[in-house]
Amino acid sequence: MSTVSLIEYDHASPEVQAVFDEIKQARNIEDVNNFWKALANHPTLLRQTWDALKQVMQPGALDGLTKEMLYIAVSIANNCDYCIHTHTAAAFAKGMTQAQYEELLAVVAMAHQTNALATGMKVPVDPQFLA
Amino acid sequence: MSTVSLIEYDHASPEVQAVFDEIKQARNIEDVNNFWKALANHPTLLRQTWDALKQVMQPGALDGLTKEMLYIAVSIANNCDYCIHTHTAAAFAKGMTQAQYEELLAVVAMAHQTNALATGMKVPVDPQFLA
Amino acid sequence: MSTVSLIEYDHASPEVQAVFDEIKQARNIEDVNNFWKALANHPTLLRQTWDALKQVMQPGALDGLTKEMLYIAVSIANNCDYCIHTHTAAAFAKGMTQAQYEELLAVVAMAHQTNALATGMKVPVDPQFLA
Amino acid sequence: MSTVSLIEYDHASPEVQAVFDEIKQARNIEDVNNFWKALANHPTLLRQTWDALKQVMQPGALDGLTKEMLYIAVSIANNCDYCIHTHTAAAFAKGMTQAQYEELLAVVAMAHQTNALATGMKVPVDPQFLA
Amino acid sequence: MSTVSLIEYDHASPEVQAVFDEIKQARNIEDVNNFWKALANHPTLLRQTWDALKQVMQPGALDGLTKEMLYIAVSIANNCDYCIHTHTAAAFAKGMTQAQYEELLAVVAMAHQTNALATGMKVPVDPQFLA
Amino acid sequence: MSTVSLIEYDHASPEVQAVFDEIKQARNIEDVNNFWKALANHPTLLRQTWDALKQVMQPGALDGLTKEMLYIAVSIANNCDYCIHTHTAAAFAKGMTQAQYEELLAVVAMAHQTNALATGMKVPVDPQFLA
Repeated sequence: MSTVSLIEYDHASPEVQAVFDEIKQARNIEDVNNFWKALANHPTLLRQTWDALKQVMQPGALDGLTKEMLYIAVSIANNCDYCIHTHTAAAFAKGMTQAQYEELLAVVAMAHQTNALATGMKVPVDPQFLA
Repeated sequence: MSTVSLIEYDHASPEVQAVFDEIKQARNIEDVNNFWKALANHPTLLRQTWDALKQVMQPGALDGLTKEMLYIAVSIANNCDYCIHTHTAAAFAKGMTQAQYEELLAVVAMAHQTNALATGMKVPVDPQFLA
Repeated sequence: MSTVSLIEYDHASPEVQAVFDEIKQARNIEDVNNFWKALANHPTLLRQTWDALKQVMQPGALDGLTKEMLYIAVSIANNCDYCIHTHTAAAFAKGMTQAQYEELLAVVAMAHQTNALATGMKVPVDPQFLA
Repeated sequence: MSTVSLIEYDHASPEVQAVFDEIKQARNIEDVNNFWKALANHPTLLRQTWDALKQVMQPGALDGLTKEMLYIAVSIANNCDYCIHTHTAAAFAKGMTQAQYEELLAVVAMAHQTNALATGMKVPVDPQFLA
Repeated sequence: MSTVSLIEYDHASPEVQAVFDEIKQARNIEDVNNFWKALANHPTLLRQTWDALKQVMQPGALDGLTKEMLYIAVSIANNCDYCIHTHTAAAFAKGMTQAQYEELLAVVAMAHQTNALATGMKVPVDPQFLA
Repeated sequence: MSTVSLIEYDHASPEVQAVFDEIKQARNIEDVNNFWKALANHPTLLRQTWDALKQVMQPGALDGLTKEMLYIAVSIANNCDYCIHTHTAAAFAKGMTQAQYEELLAVVAMAHQTNALATGMKVPVDPQFLA
């Protein structure tokens, strides 16, 4: 159970409904995810988060799938259950193949391993990377 | 200062020199990074880490730059100084543009923000993502 | 399921019952939370943890609600399910309003975002903050 | 050294200078912190981050000092060097006393301790907190 | 639910079955844990992970129980549900006593507490530890 | 630089000097580490932390070296610079061999890797571990 109630569209204020409508249209879905229904308790935060996410995640110098995979990598490192599930699903929806997913997991796991080694030995950064 | 001494090529055992030679050849560099000189205190760990890293980071279903960017994302989340510096440099060496780097930072930062929101409210995963 | 059994008052040793009694009296509750029933497997750890928590969380230079909100902030960053639930409930019990909770979540999420940016770019600390 | 160059006001584009001017005016300071000079490499991210931070950190249901203390708590948990230094300084500038700082540190440290205990034993959340 | 399907022995490819057989024999168990059934979606990653784990976790300069306890400590710090459960069970199977478990939890929790204090105050490392 | 000044023995209050004396005697050292000089700004926190640490780290069901190694494991996972340096030095002082240190690093790094895999795939805990 969440620490807040999940607000459904029919019980939402007009300003919340407006954000929900934008999300549904942008993603071509019937209903918004629980994340947005939870955020709807805080209309200002809902509006800011959606505006920022929509802007940050749009394809640009990086394509949409690469952005989703970066999101998964961070969500695994932060151990965010909700985010791992939704962004993994989003990445598959954007065309991630099983082979890409395997390599994503392998890279993320390897990064955790060498992060621990470099941190554990407190390896000094080589001068050429500090120039 | 690191918790171990950094072992230079000329003072390394033959088995360590063999790994150093492989790294230098694979990356076309004159000398290996401090990470490897630190790991050289533990020849078995050095060999395993290099073999695994070489295999995991080779281009496959994901290209080399995408893998470096995933590495950066994890290293930021884990706050590994050494890894942030070296993998950011590696990504630029593999062709990452300033525009891509900006978007990478924006996505990683946004992911941290929404990870915190989803975790803080303990949002339940939507049934469709659990199917 | 926890890795330990939850020890109920009636099955607890006298030293555990003594701590349980103190908690129930201090908080004016009928029964202690699962956290304490789990810790009861380790009576020494139970006693130390309760003594420390009681001392640290009592109102002082910071009021009780501010302390609970700091606890929530750390628990979100550490992604501790149990702690997020119990300390969010405790904060509401101590008078946290929905408006305060919204701002708490917004600050915690924003902090995660700028933490990632400062860490990702390895921004050097300004000299005036090191004086 | 940071992974990006620090952009000084005189070498900044007009859009960056505009953000710098807003920060200097809002905080009544002569020059912006390194964080903003680093972000100035990414003008869009600079603008978004400043707009969001200004909005989130303004006094509201929570006062400015409480927000700074929450920021410190998260920054410690995330181990963000830059953020710990700057937000601790900001909290003192907003009137945090040494006694408050001591209690802040004690609460943050205690939260880390009990987070580890609850997580380590996988204590199930009590039903009353899930209602 | 996991983000991948769990592959049972009878539906596995010969290369996956070979790894499963090795795990079952090495651990003298009837069936492998879900971790391996999940990894079986990625046969290369399955093979690498098992080979590395088998090598790293074998008794050597450190005995098998000490290694399991270190694994638990990291898994608590990373808040990995699955890993906490399985490695705690493995440690008990290798002879960890309740008294040892209590002390393990106490040390891990204390380490989190003093980590937060040292990080929060940004205590400089004493010169003798950097020599 | 730390966020607090480091208080030397000669400038410390009698209550702080008393704790310093206990630490110096217990560890047979001439002067306390910077951690304690930083904590000395907060005499209550200093006293509590020393009393707890002394109790938790004393040899019991686990020997002193094993406790130091667990401390290192957590400090690496939390990326606490100060703690990694001091506890690695303490472990060597208590007899940790280079071979043990290599295996410690290998286990900690491996744990980070499989933590990421289990978390990334959201592997469900096997029923036998929940019984």
